[in-house]
Amino acid sequence: MGRSENMNTSISVLRLGHRRERDKRITSHLGLTARAFGADEIILSGDEDPSPLLTWNSVSNRFGGEFICRYESKPLRLLRKTAKDKNTLIVHLTMYGEKMEEILKKLPFDESILIVVGGTKVPGEVYGLADYNVSIGNQPHSEVAALAIFLNNYVDIDSLNNKFSGGEIKVVPTKRGKNILTLEEE
Amino acid sequence: MGRSENMNTSISVLRLGHRRERDKRITSHLGLTARAFGADEIILSGDEDPSPLLTWNSVSNRFGGEFICRYESKPLRLLRKTAKDKNTLIVHLTMYGEKMEEILKKLPFDESILIVVGGTKVPGEVYGLADYNVSIGNQPHSEVAALAIFLNNYVDIDSLNNKFSGGEIKVVPTKRGKNILTLEEE
Repeated sequence: MGRSENMNTSISVLRLGHRRERDKRITSHLGLTARAFGADEIILSGDEDPSPLLTWNSVSNRFGGEFICRYESKPLRLLRKTAKDKNTLIVHLTMYGEKMEEILKKLPFDESILIVVGGTKVPGEVYGLADYNVSIGNQPHSEVAALAIFLNNYVDIDSLNNKFSGGEIKVVPTKRGKNILTLEEE
Repeated sequence: MGRSENMNTSISVLRLGHRRERDKRITSHLGLTARAFGADEIILSGDEDPSPLLTWNSVSNRFGGEFICRYESKPLRLLRKTAKDKNTLIVHLTMYGEKMEEILKKLPFDESILIVVGGTKVPGEVYGLADYNVSIGNQPHSEVAALAIFLNNYVDIDSLNNKFSGGEIKVVPTKRGKNILTLEEE
């Protein structure tokens, strides 16, 4: 069930319209959510801000796995190019889109996808460039919630077990309290 | 599948350790996520801050439904009382807990639940007071993501269709662009 991590394609997340002060923690949480639920890459756009990239890289160093983080100053150009290339599907998460349940039925699991997550004002052009405009419910909530639920439904979570190798620590599920394994360097 | 909105029990979310400046938008998104995915109530604790409550009430006025928002200055007292009462299950979302998939198999759908969502430092006592400490993956991500995925798996989303009545506007799912219905007052 769902897309397996072992496929030879990638999941990228493009964060539009980041505002350095106002979105500091939301953007940081968005990238961590992308990483935790199977994305391979996050692309920050809007204000150029090293802070979320530092957070994401630091978490990857401690908790393992490869997670690419970069800044893109011209996100619309990237989207236009991606739309033209036809190698990658563009999935735009928006409360105005079609129901996720319907889109998941037709979304292929074996193509690369670029998930676009809006900030405040998403340019109208994005709706046209997207292959799918997808809503996770039609109530206002959060880009973090939308990304989390989308990835949780699209990616096979069991296939992620091996994604986070090479870190310094590992959390072991436990009934009460905390169980943290410190991994030795080889 | 999942818990139906029509049951005579409630879902509350307790947000621990809110910090007025740092958590402004995360807490706001957390409450909107609670509302959008079927919680009946959110209880804010930590810094006393009217701003998220104003946001949540304003969204309910515009988009409909009953969503209770309140501030609680003594969250641990509330948790101890809830743990003693035995009428309500306490579900603590934490990256250190047992896997959600396992817990969902045994979590009843016909009891009231109080979902506890941590901020920075969650007191150790909370892990003991909780009936279930539940992790949504064991990677660091976001309390917004954790709440979103938990509710999306626990609540039957189709049962929410009638939850949001009485609002001023309604978003209609659409392939491109935005379709917003303005509802007339009766």
